[in-house]
Amino acid sequence: MSIQMINSMDFEEFIDILGNIIENCPLIAATIWSQRPFKDLTDLKKHVFDFIEALPQSDEETESQSSWHRNNPNKGKEGILRCHPDIAGREFEQGTLTPQSQREQREAGLSDLSLEERRRLGHLNSAYKTRFGFPFVIAARLSDKATILKELERRLKNQPAQELSTALEEVLKICHLRLEDIRQSLEDPAKL
Amino acid sequence: MSIQMINSMDFEEFIDILGNIIENCPLIAATIWSQRPFKDLTDLKKHVFDFIEALPQSDEETESQSSWHRNNPNKGKEGILRCHPDIAGREFEQGTLTPQSQREQREAGLSDLSLEERRRLGHLNSAYKTRFGFPFVIAARLSDKATILKELERRLKNQPAQELSTALEEVLKICHLRLEDIRQSLEDPAKL
Repeated sequence: MSIQMINSMDFEEFIDILGNIIENCPLIAATIWSQRPFKDLTDLKKHVFDFIEALPQSDEETESQSSWHRNNPNKGKEGILRCHPDIAGREFEQGTLTPQSQREQREAGLSDLSLEERRRLGHLNSAYKTRFGFPFVIAARLSDKATILKELERRLKNQPAQELSTALEEVLKICHLRLEDIRQSLEDPAKL
Repeated sequence: MSIQMINSMDFEEFIDILGNIIENCPLIAATIWSQRPFKDLTDLKKHVFDFIEALPQSDEETESQSSWHRNNPNKGKEGILRCHPDIAGREFEQGTLTPQSQREQREAGLSDLSLEERRRLGHLNSAYKTRFGFPFVIAARLSDKATILKELERRLKNQPAQELSTALEEVLKICHLRLEDIRQSLEDPAKL
């Protein structure tokens, strides 16, 4: 039922409603709109994943900087991660995240950190960004503050290629949950 | 001078400052950050253009829907256009555009439309979106309201492939002007 409503949207409605299924990347919804009609939400998700998959990724470990520079005009997967906010960062505290992120971080209990937890998270977030060149992304709604801290500490030790793929899996989990919310709100508008 | 400042930015600063050089597509700045150091702004712009060029585009006129569907997982160039706002649309009137777009449309005299101009623009915008599946994009700062109306009327008659390429040229002109503003503000912070 909701897929028919989605398939009948013009691009403006589509971007209004689905523009943030990948955080701060309305380009993705704006692009896959051309692929309607979608069979179902799984099919729609597949187009999102295909878009992300089609974004070139450099392999700095095996190529020299100069050949990489020539052969890989962009590193879109890391770009997608960089469009995500810090976990419990300043924007979350100021309430200026996208509504979806604000809610997800709040529901994970991140508005309820002790001074010590806040300090530790700030320190780990910044070590993570220095090491990988993108912020720590996790599907906060599937987690809680203790697990988030533990995961951040654990993933900080990953190799860069492994961590890029772990982080992208989290992006896809977030996308899945946001699509579920959209499905529910289309089927029962009173819920939103 | 400003290119050294840009090259020394971490990804968060870079996205803060350059995130909107392509309207509502921070993914592009977030991606090309990996390609630092840039030789100069022309080199930086080349990376933006390469990113856009690397986004697949379908050719519906020569391929069947099903083969297109399989072979072209995304139509990113049209997606970029769809991230742009209407010229003198509701968001402009409400002042909720990005600061850059708001200023560009204001400076083109679009806050100063007669009732008849507003009606005509609304009608043409909507005919354009129906015909092409993306909004009318023009580098407003290089134009004025009379020329914008004339251009919208003229481009509405273009063939879709021709119009896609015309519209993307406008995106690149806008990007160029926004980068010039950034350069000036970095060299003389008092200007912003």
